[in-house]
Amino acid sequence: MDLLKEKILSEGHVRDGNILKVDRFLNHQLDIQLLNQLGTEFHRRFSHLPVDKILTAEVSGIAIAAIAAQYFNVPVVFAKKLESKNLDPDTYEGEVYSYTKEKTYKIRVSKQYMSPGENILILDDFLANGEAMKGLMEIIEGAKAHLVGAGVVIEKGFQPGGAELRAKGILLESLVIIDSLANNEITFR
Amino acid sequence: MDLLKEKILSEGHVRDGNILKVDRFLNHQLDIQLLNQLGTEFHRRFSHLPVDKILTAEVSGIAIAAIAAQYFNVPVVFAKKLESKNLDPDTYEGEVYSYTKEKTYKIRVSKQYMSPGENILILDDFLANGEAMKGLMEIIEGAKAHLVGAGVVIEKGFQPGGAELRAKGILLESLVIIDSLANNEITFR
Repeated sequence: MDLLKEKILSEGHVRDGNILKVDRFLNHQLDIQLLNQLGTEFHRRFSHLPVDKILTAEVSGIAIAAIAAQYFNVPVVFAKKLESKNLDPDTYEGEVYSYTKEKTYKIRVSKQYMSPGENILILDDFLANGEAMKGLMEIIEGAKAHLVGAGVVIEKGFQPGGAELRAKGILLESLVIIDSLANNEITFR
Repeated sequence: MDLLKEKILSEGHVRDGNILKVDRFLNHQLDIQLLNQLGTEFHRRFSHLPVDKILTAEVSGIAIAAIAAQYFNVPVVFAKKLESKNLDPDTYEGEVYSYTKEKTYKIRVSKQYMSPGENILILDDFLANGEAMKGLMEIIEGAKAHLVGAGVVIEKGFQPGGAELRAKGILLESLVIIDSLANNEITFR
């Protein structure tokens, strides 16, 4: 996706520690026209498959999934990270290890909103070590639903998440893959 | 909005403590077709005013704001609740008192994404005591931006937030107002 590459080059910032900040358009301020293009592209890549529902994780996957879901004409469910009194006690859970926070936390989806046999497409903003993806997949397994594939906006190709998912035979579509952020320079695959 | 009332009656659940659960379509699972209707309606109500940007608060305002923003053709910025290493240190802050958690927390917007004189429309899912709204308004004041108005999907009319905002002269548009949840029954205004 050349448009996305251009956006990352012009408005993204690399910080020490292989951090790519895309706050300006993807996960704090949201460029809705860009999100529409990303949604269209996700649909193009997955439209040959049955998709009943899109699953994402709060917080930064929500806008991407909601905009993309319009092209699939399906509902979204987002896994909740935060403890909430309002969440049903009866949930499917996944565990996510956070490298930045150096701890494991749980993400949850109410059992009401995922059913055995449902065809689930995961969408998210970043794929790096694949920890959030593993947690989302645990939820799908818990529900005995079917993982159709996973789409991410930006894959950090120098971290192992993407390769591990592909090795497992999961259909992974990354709109851009970044091979290096060394010396604070962005190298696309 | 009759469609929204029907949805609340058919898929919402009232819990003790004046809690209206709309998890099935608004803040855990997302009914994207409904969100499109809500976005269209927000645009109808605010289209006579200049809107440069939509402001919301994470988590449950994000999908509503992102879908609605398509009709306004403007970007969204969502105030962050969570401490994040990735957030710029230089932010506009607002304080929000949470009645459920019985504590005050901060919400933040990077100074890069709100500018003096910008016309800001706030959109959110619920308005009850108006605490989140006050926090968002503090952020707008901090940025010396201009609050055009505020739109919420569901106003709990039996709590004081809506009346207080209207008394201050703020243009508040609530897509539905609920006057009572007494005896776990929903009474619309």
